Amino acid sequence: MSGTSKADAGKVIEFHFDFISPFGYFASLRIDEIAQRHGRRADWSSMLVGISVLKVMGLPPIPKTPLKGEYARRDAERYCRRYGIALARQFAGTPANPLAAGRSFHWLKKNRPDLAVPVARAIFDAYWLEDRGIGDLDLVLDIAADRGADRAELAEAHSSGAASDLLRAAVDKSLAKGVFGSPFFLVDEEPFFGVEKIELMEEWLASGGW
Amino acid sequence: MSGTSKADAGKVIEFHFDFISPFGYFASLRIDEIAQRHGRRADWSSMLVGISVLKVMGLPPIPKTPLKGEYARRDAERYCRRYGIALARQFAGTPANPLAAGRSFHWLKKNRPDLAVPVARAIFDAYWLEDRGIGDLDLVLDIAADRGADRAELAEAHSSGAASDLLRAAVDKSLAKGVFGSPFFLVDEEPFFGVEKIELMEEWLASGGW
Repeated sequence: MSGTSKADAGKVIEFHFDFISPFGYFASLRIDEIAQRHGRRADWSSMLVGISVLKVMGLPPIPKTPLKGEYARRDAERYCRRYGIALARQFAGTPANPLAAGRSFHWLKKNRPDLAVPVARAIFDAYWLEDRGIGDLDLVLDIAADRGADRAELAEAHSSGAASDLLRAAVDKSLAKGVFGSPFFLVDEEPFFGVEKIELMEEWLASGGW
Repeated sequence: MSGTSKADAGKVIEFHFDFISPFGYFASLRIDEIAQRHGRRADWSSMLVGISVLKVMGLPPIPKTPLKGEYARRDAERYCRRYGIALARQFAGTPANPLAAGRSFHWLKKNRPDLAVPVARAIFDAYWLEDRGIGDLDLVLDIAADRGADRAELAEAHSSGAASDLLRAAVDKSLAKGVFGSPFFLVDEEPFFGVEKIELMEEWLASGGW
């Protein structure tokens, strides 16, 4: 499912993200360039912080966590100013349901791997830059079709449950690897959580670890 | 209590830490040099993550949080390797009670401000480098006396409740400022949480913010 064979396992950076995580979005804007700079390929994989991970951890959503919610909002806004990103969507608003996006992504990743990342980028942009309701399957299908996916085939993968199975398997796999937030990176098996760990990860990549 | 008047409020970096937080310890090793490099002074203030903050947030201790606990342990060990720090104490062990240390620190900060940081460093080292039981008041009094504090006077501040009142007031004040973890830095009123935010904070200090 990851598109990664044993042979090139050392050449990817696993990039785990939730479409409704602003920090996952921020990381999505930088990860391909970072991977390339270190001679690697970013292996994108969507997961579900609110729907799956936080249940395993027994934690409330960050925006609803006292003190931390307010800090994360400020941190996201500061990040936008720092990198010149103008979000249309508010961090603290009610999030969209990320299932349609995540299921579509993983089905494309398996069946049209050339389209998975471009469609993921388009979904991210639709949500964060245009504040569109990516919880709506029709919108996600439209976005995927715009980038070249077969709309009917993808819709069928949703109806049949095939896309849902792929997302569930990916989420289970990421949980088994210890992925608990968005963004979360794995370099070989070394975990880095959060956009604030990108510089440390780059140091790790450049130095071979320590 | 903070030792900071309005006049020099722009010249400090508030450094909030819990003695039993390894990441707070790591930050303590760097913060004075960082502040100095940016023409500021580090204003140390101990707080209580486990005893106060997590109760406000409704969260379990990090070492006991699924997925995150294991990640934090690995992250702490990695940080030690990166910076050449050899901890005697295990991250996942049962933590000491930080009240004796915090109460002593805040009493010294008010009454012997020249000794507060040296004693804090000695307590940190005793705990993390020597794995000594800093929950024991006698040990904390010994450490403080070794650095020049009046042992009997400090013991009396514990007996009378004066030291406890000072710690409680400091914790309440830090919570009111949104401090929720260790280490936590405030530059003027801008919050930075975690050792992984130090580089961003330095960029903020150098650039004047964004």
